[in-house]
Amino acid sequence: MKKQAISMNVVRRLPKYLRCISELLEEKIFRISSKQLGELTGFTSSQIRQDFNHFGGFGKQGYGYDVQALYGEICEILAIKKRRNAIIIGAGNLGQAIANYSGFREYFLDIKAIFDIDENIIGKPCCDLVIKDQQYIDSTIDEENISIAIICTPKEVASEIAQKLMNCPSIHGIWNFAPVDIKGNDKVFVENVSLVDSLYVLSFMMKQKRNK
Amino acid sequence: MKKQAISMNVVRRLPKYLRCISELLEEKIFRISSKQLGELTGFTSSQIRQDFNHFGGFGKQGYGYDVQALYGEICEILAIKKRRNAIIIGAGNLGQAIANYSGFREYFLDIKAIFDIDENIIGKPCCDLVIKDQQYIDSTIDEENISIAIICTPKEVASEIAQKLMNCPSIHGIWNFAPVDIKGNDKVFVENVSLVDSLYVLSFMMKQKRNK
Repeated sequence: MKKQAISMNVVRRLPKYLRCISELLEEKIFRISSKQLGELTGFTSSQIRQDFNHFGGFGKQGYGYDVQALYGEICEILAIKKRRNAIIIGAGNLGQAIANYSGFREYFLDIKAIFDIDENIIGKPCCDLVIKDQQYIDSTIDEENISIAIICTPKEVASEIAQKLMNCPSIHGIWNFAPVDIKGNDKVFVENVSLVDSLYVLSFMMKQKRNK
Repeated sequence: MKKQAISMNVVRRLPKYLRCISELLEEKIFRISSKQLGELTGFTSSQIRQDFNHFGGFGKQGYGYDVQALYGEICEILAIKKRRNAIIIGAGNLGQAIANYSGFREYFLDIKAIFDIDENIIGKPCCDLVIKDQQYIDSTIDEENISIAIICTPKEVASEIAQKLMNCPSIHGIWNFAPVDIKGNDKVFVENVSLVDSLYVLSFMMKQKRNK
């Protein structure tokens, strides 16, 4: 029984719940109340209950949550047991950092290719891949059934590349690291990672700490 | 006239307002209503008014917002005109990507040093710096009056390094890219950048698009 129109705030809390719950499982804790989960995650217990109600509840009155069941449910909701093929566009430091970040592979991301336009690095190894010429993006997407494109290009070309990617039938997600907001459409969701925004939050909070 | 207890949700919206407002200035738009600002940012106009009320308003009834004044106010709130000295710990791909990302310097971040423990890369150039041995972290923090430490180490050592950094008197902010949540304290704010969380959100939203 799913409700419609889950806000992005709820969606962004789900990975935090999952992280907390997987730590509980590692510690062999199999049952938890929303109050305890609140203490661990920093959210209120009523917020947690409200969030989980979007997906049909999970908890039992007077018992709390079965941690293993909760873990399974949230994995299911986030669809992270389904493996997905991805490509990286832009093989600068950031693109290579993402290709090398083994954490992503552990979950569901199979990075099948990394592209660049710079002839000096095309053909060079990166992780267990070889950096490919950007002209082969379309054919690789078709051949490898790519659903996620990770944009690590300079700001100036990111939007144009994103528009082209959105036209590829198999692409349903873009993970954008270029410092420009890219809008998705009905078919493609774009997750913009703005490191500058994160830096601004750090700056603000540092000021708050000093003013205390 | 500042109110207490601004929620992190409000804080995280401020950079998005700033980005939108600076784009307006580039387009020489000097006046805007909360309704128009809502259309541009995707937030509701009442949310925008509420958010700005935390900091004393800024708008005039029947006129809207003076875009230049608003830009100045939000810069002031975020404290991003104040330059801050930073170091990077961990000179792998991600650390080097951040050192090379000129965007950060444009704002307020002066990266003064980058450290690693790997003898094979210590002494090598990175951007306009030379990778230093991690044993010089403390002395560099003192000499260069470093207030921000950027952690780009593997997960296993990140928490221990963060604890040591928090003991350095001049450190008030940690920007953590290691995939582990680090908690701050009264003196130090820790901004955890969890790329895995962002990837989970992408996964969830891709599923939602497909289910439409």
